[in-house]
Amino acid sequence: MSILVVGSVAFDTVKTPSGEVHEALGGSATHFSVSASFWSPVRLVAVVGEDFTDAHRQPLLDRKVDLAGLTTAPGRTFRWSGVYGDDLNSARTLDTQLNVFADFRPEIPEAWRSTPLLFLANIDPELQWNVLDQVHGAQLVAADTMNYWIDSKPEALKKLLGRVDILLINDGEIRQLTGERNLMRAVDAVRRLGPQAIVVKRGEHGVLVVEGERAFALPAFPLKAVLDPTGAGDAFAGGFLGYLASHGTAGDRDMRRAAVVGSVMASYQVEDFSLDRLKRLTHPEIRERYAGFEDLTRFKPLS
Amino acid sequence: MSILVVGSVAFDTVKTPSGEVHEALGGSATHFSVSASFWSPVRLVAVVGEDFTDAHRQPLLDRKVDLAGLTTAPGRTFRWSGVYGDDLNSARTLDTQLNVFADFRPEIPEAWRSTPLLFLANIDPELQWNVLDQVHGAQLVAADTMNYWIDSKPEALKKLLGRVDILLINDGEIRQLTGERNLMRAVDAVRRLGPQAIVVKRGEHGVLVVEGERAFALPAFPLKAVLDPTGAGDAFAGGFLGYLASHGTAGDRDMRRAAVVGSVMASYQVEDFSLDRLKRLTHPEIRERYAGFEDLTRFKPLS
Repeated sequence: MSILVVGSVAFDTVKTPSGEVHEALGGSATHFSVSASFWSPVRLVAVVGEDFTDAHRQPLLDRKVDLAGLTTAPGRTFRWSGVYGDDLNSARTLDTQLNVFADFRPEIPEAWRSTPLLFLANIDPELQWNVLDQVHGAQLVAADTMNYWIDSKPEALKKLLGRVDILLINDGEIRQLTGERNLMRAVDAVRRLGPQAIVVKRGEHGVLVVEGERAFALPAFPLKAVLDPTGAGDAFAGGFLGYLASHGTAGDRDMRRAAVVGSVMASYQVEDFSLDRLKRLTHPEIRERYAGFEDLTRFKPLS
Repeated sequence: MSILVVGSVAFDTVKTPSGEVHEALGGSATHFSVSASFWSPVRLVAVVGEDFTDAHRQPLLDRKVDLAGLTTAPGRTFRWSGVYGDDLNSARTLDTQLNVFADFRPEIPEAWRSTPLLFLANIDPELQWNVLDQVHGAQLVAADTMNYWIDSKPEALKKLLGRVDILLINDGEIRQLTGERNLMRAVDAVRRLGPQAIVVKRGEHGVLVVEGERAFALPAFPLKAVLDPTGAGDAFAGGFLGYLASHGTAGDRDMRRAAVVGSVMASYQVEDFSLDRLKRLTHPEIRERYAGFEDLTRFKPLS
């Protein structure tokens, strides 16, 4: 089934200890879409400026991402610039130019309003709420957020969670949102706000998925070289939800396998800058790393 | 087979957000021995002061730990005092009184010099070297260390590693020892110094075991309440090496199962202060949590 994603498309200028890129294609909706496209048809809703060319569209079209919801507004495309130090876990933002993104009011094309799986990437929770009102046909709603919205619009965010089935959030953010230092108690607190499933992204420490009373924890793939962590969380979300969409959203949905697939996609995402690794990624490589995760985590019963 | 441990026995005064204890039995050799004793016979070499009473010996004797190598020296027992904040990952040391531990020169009883498994807990690497000279019958040598020795005696420590089969070390320390921020490259650097197997303890993020070209990663057990993290690393080492000792040190040794057992013991250790949880721990509880780790980490092949 199809996935609809609403989020940002941006030009990223990124410097890491391994190199740098200048105004490379990025943004949450971009990274999500390319990753999810390996699994399911993707519909992208975002806004870009007049400086966004056909050449910029091409990597998304190559992955058959449907761009009927990508609107062009007068002005320049959203730009972000950041630098990572030796600790690749977090970037220092050098510059943010919202440009056309500042006035983004997502309009969902009529034909897309019954898309079965909706992913609300990290944007203003009030806009996420508005998108939910439009996509009345969604059977499964997943959302991401970030520290900025937890700080500035906590009530709007908490209200939104009452309509969200799956929340994807990183470990620092879930502690910030709930005021709970203990991760499992933070997860419990979020579940009381609505989501049935919580996916805690822990960067180099992997991912924790809690659904009902069961928890699943997966370490990150131990890579010897991480070139650029930008987009890892979005690539994870793309693999996670892309896999769920490709296997239906019925009772047998397998969030564990989905979390491994998401981790596979994220592990490739960080092996190069921008979309460079996912552009050349193949399904045999995906299967190979999935098997790598099996080898990394398997152990025998206690004899 | 038996394990010989050389390390510290101490009185710990610890405060955490959940409570506090005053001069409770602690020290690396103590926590290690009690944990390992669930799996194999343990021989303890350490020094205590004249204030160490029969009542203090009792918890170790209850676990059938052989105390023939526990010597009493004139003076007071080693004391440590620390406080943990909401972030339970690291303690702030309030006070350290080495007392009799300052002049500790381990003498291994003659009958113990062919103990097959030797664990050099965290003490001066020059003393660890000296112990190795005495225990010439050891078939498998494991060692721990800490940031203090990496800072003050890096050359002695690196020389020691040429004689060590398994190094247990935490993630911050292995980065400090090697100067490598990337964990896998840090592991490679340590393996070039000697150890065939590296066990990286990552606290609330679990453990990474690298032996030969294969890596095994296990998340920590997601507990809703951690009362006191003191001794978690030593309880892990006790379970890890205790399990290996109980299953021989031959080619079929299963470090993955050992790492799960170590993680089970560490997860119980932090559920209460000092030795309080391990004192009342049962084998059915150990099996139950081992099964809990299976449930936490299992996923199906990609269909």
